[in-house]
Amino acid sequence: MDNPAAVRARETEPELDDILRLHVGGKTRMTSRLSIDSVERLRRIYTPGVAEVSRLIEADPEKAYEYTSIGETVAVLTNGTAVLGLGDVGVRAAMPVMEGKAVILMEMVDIAAVPLLVDTREADRLVETAAAVAPTFGAILLEDIAAPLCFEVEDRLKERADIPVFHDDQHGTAVVVLGALISALKLTGKRARDLRVVINGAGAAGTAIARFLLNYGVADVVLCDSAGAICRGRTENMNPAKERIARETNRENQAGPLADVMAGKDLFIGVSVAGLVSKEMVRSMAPDPIVFAMANPVPEIWPHEALEAGAAAAEDGRHINNALGFPGIFRGALDARARIINEEMKIAAASALAELAPEGELVPDFMDRAVHRAVADAVARGARQTGVARA
Amino acid sequence: MDNPAAVRARETEPELDDILRLHVGGKTRMTSRLSIDSVERLRRIYTPGVAEVSRLIEADPEKAYEYTSIGETVAVLTNGTAVLGLGDVGVRAAMPVMEGKAVILMEMVDIAAVPLLVDTREADRLVETAAAVAPTFGAILLEDIAAPLCFEVEDRLKERADIPVFHDDQHGTAVVVLGALISALKLTGKRARDLRVVINGAGAAGTAIARFLLNYGVADVVLCDSAGAICRGRTENMNPAKERIARETNRENQAGPLADVMAGKDLFIGVSVAGLVSKEMVRSMAPDPIVFAMANPVPEIWPHEALEAGAAAAEDGRHINNALGFPGIFRGALDARARIINEEMKIAAASALAELAPEGELVPDFMDRAVHRAVADAVARGARQTGVARA
Repeated sequence: MDNPAAVRARETEPELDDILRLHVGGKTRMTSRLSIDSVERLRRIYTPGVAEVSRLIEADPEKAYEYTSIGETVAVLTNGTAVLGLGDVGVRAAMPVMEGKAVILMEMVDIAAVPLLVDTREADRLVETAAAVAPTFGAILLEDIAAPLCFEVEDRLKERADIPVFHDDQHGTAVVVLGALISALKLTGKRARDLRVVINGAGAAGTAIARFLLNYGVADVVLCDSAGAICRGRTENMNPAKERIARETNRENQAGPLADVMAGKDLFIGVSVAGLVSKEMVRSMAPDPIVFAMANPVPEIWPHEALEAGAAAAEDGRHINNALGFPGIFRGALDARARIINEEMKIAAASALAELAPEGELVPDFMDRAVHRAVADAVARGARQTGVARA
Repeated sequence: MDNPAAVRARETEPELDDILRLHVGGKTRMTSRLSIDSVERLRRIYTPGVAEVSRLIEADPEKAYEYTSIGETVAVLTNGTAVLGLGDVGVRAAMPVMEGKAVILMEMVDIAAVPLLVDTREADRLVETAAAVAPTFGAILLEDIAAPLCFEVEDRLKERADIPVFHDDQHGTAVVVLGALISALKLTGKRARDLRVVINGAGAAGTAIARFLLNYGVADVVLCDSAGAICRGRTENMNPAKERIARETNRENQAGPLADVMAGKDLFIGVSVAGLVSKEMVRSMAPDPIVFAMANPVPEIWPHEALEAGAAAAEDGRHINNALGFPGIFRGALDARARIINEEMKIAAASALAELAPEGELVPDFMDRAVHRAVADAVARGARQTGVARA
């Protein structure tokens, strides 16, 4: 007989055989919404009948939303260069992750999501390819594209496509972090405009979180990478994206290692690697510090350790997970036929998450479909209020 | 009460309202093969569990066929420049047709087919885009791309992608025509090596049919367009694709209008426009002529008129329709994991169609799924015999 601890371990740590069995044949499948049971029906679904539908859309492009799948379909698009913690595994090895993301969209918010692998490491080709296929979709979810390539690709693709383009590793993560932060501010009585933040990890997620929190009104953010604080005048391990973020963050232009930068800060956000933060470092923070340690699968510091070291709120990536954000954000964007996903829509999503968090929790339960629905409604409202909705 | 003739008319000529109702919301929908009923299950489908599947594929790319949807998924890709008889309607207005084609693949041969709109009229961009997304799919069905662009795009994309690329308007049509021709040869006792053919229409279909019939061994083919026979030395209404086909066809370098060229020919194939062929023109052909008048929806000459004028066999595009070909061809290519769809595989498909045609008919019934299965088996066998199969 298995002892209870062994059973519990198996429940939380899925076994390889169990996992592989679920993935056989892939997790997504395009299907037909109509059967072909006679030639007469074929002549309505396909030629000659379908020509009438094409003519209608040619005359009025908006009809595509009524008579095709376009408005309910999202591309989940990657070039496979930053897949989970695995790195640059290539596009085909990224497919199980894209299918997984598509499953979440389909199961949680009833969006048809099409994985799309784009085999290139060049910004030009990635942008051109995504822009060329964009008319097939109601929105594009960019996924697992390495920094700094992801910044350029997203910025340029937004210019080119007239549908929402959203890099989840950046903005999805930022939205869920802000949702958790709004809850933590309520819990601790701290105010955003006084908040001093340190973020460890200057990739897609860290950079986007920094910008989003500053835009929300936090006092200051210092971003750190493996070479310490990113500041103006630093020369080691820089790139144009880091030069730019150095100008936007770090008001006092702090330099030095993470351990020094953490001293006196109100909030630590980790989007880096396991075990980088000690209890001592948490103790060096401002009174009632907040710790979001989101390295996956092992965080920078376990929440219980952070709490033991005096944190007023602590959470890891199992709960502060972007799967809480992107389903509702995309559902809301499609519902409003938004042209873009703007800052107001993202803040609306974060506020909805905070409101829906149960007493004593920072974020709501991912499994609760009403949460995703509420996020969607908040996002659609945000789109309408800011004039970017077409429906 | 409706009289029987009116009822029959309604059954064969679908009404606009009936048609539109079927197309509401689109005809295809991506779906999830797995439910998310607990966080534990999510952790198997998505992170952290999915990382194991990605690692497996990174180590052995062939595993993508086992653990993702790639090997069972075909892209139905267009740039919307030659949609049915409508012409260049733009990509979004092409979507109902792509969805219709996808429905046929899904319903007749259980292939997951993903419509993909590529918004460009440039060969370079179309090739680059399709090549970039190719790793997502087991094969690419090119559709409704205008000639001569379609020739360059298909040739170049075949070089770039390591999966089958097949322009249905060219080769699907050619396969079904050859299938009907094999039946007609049996019926008339004519032999391919003696057969003199005239094809009216020098677009994607006409050009591909000409090459395919010559490759099968027919004696001669003369292609005509609106300026008459395409011959060496003609200057009017030419382009590089027509210059090339002028060198490959028309052994005797016939010039002149269609009516002159038809005289003495054994087989007329029409892939042009309604009503161009008169009974007199059929009477001018060789004894026991064969007439395939495939203009849609109204043929160059109705089959009953051709028969009245002495044709030994006559058929229009309702029966000689590429929907008879491409489902089995793609099913067979995926079953064999073929790298390409070669001439032998196409001839195998045509031969299977001829064998399956009921007594007195030139082609089998589209609605009979056993027909598509038999074509698929013939195509997969062809792939294995010619060494292009990977399974």
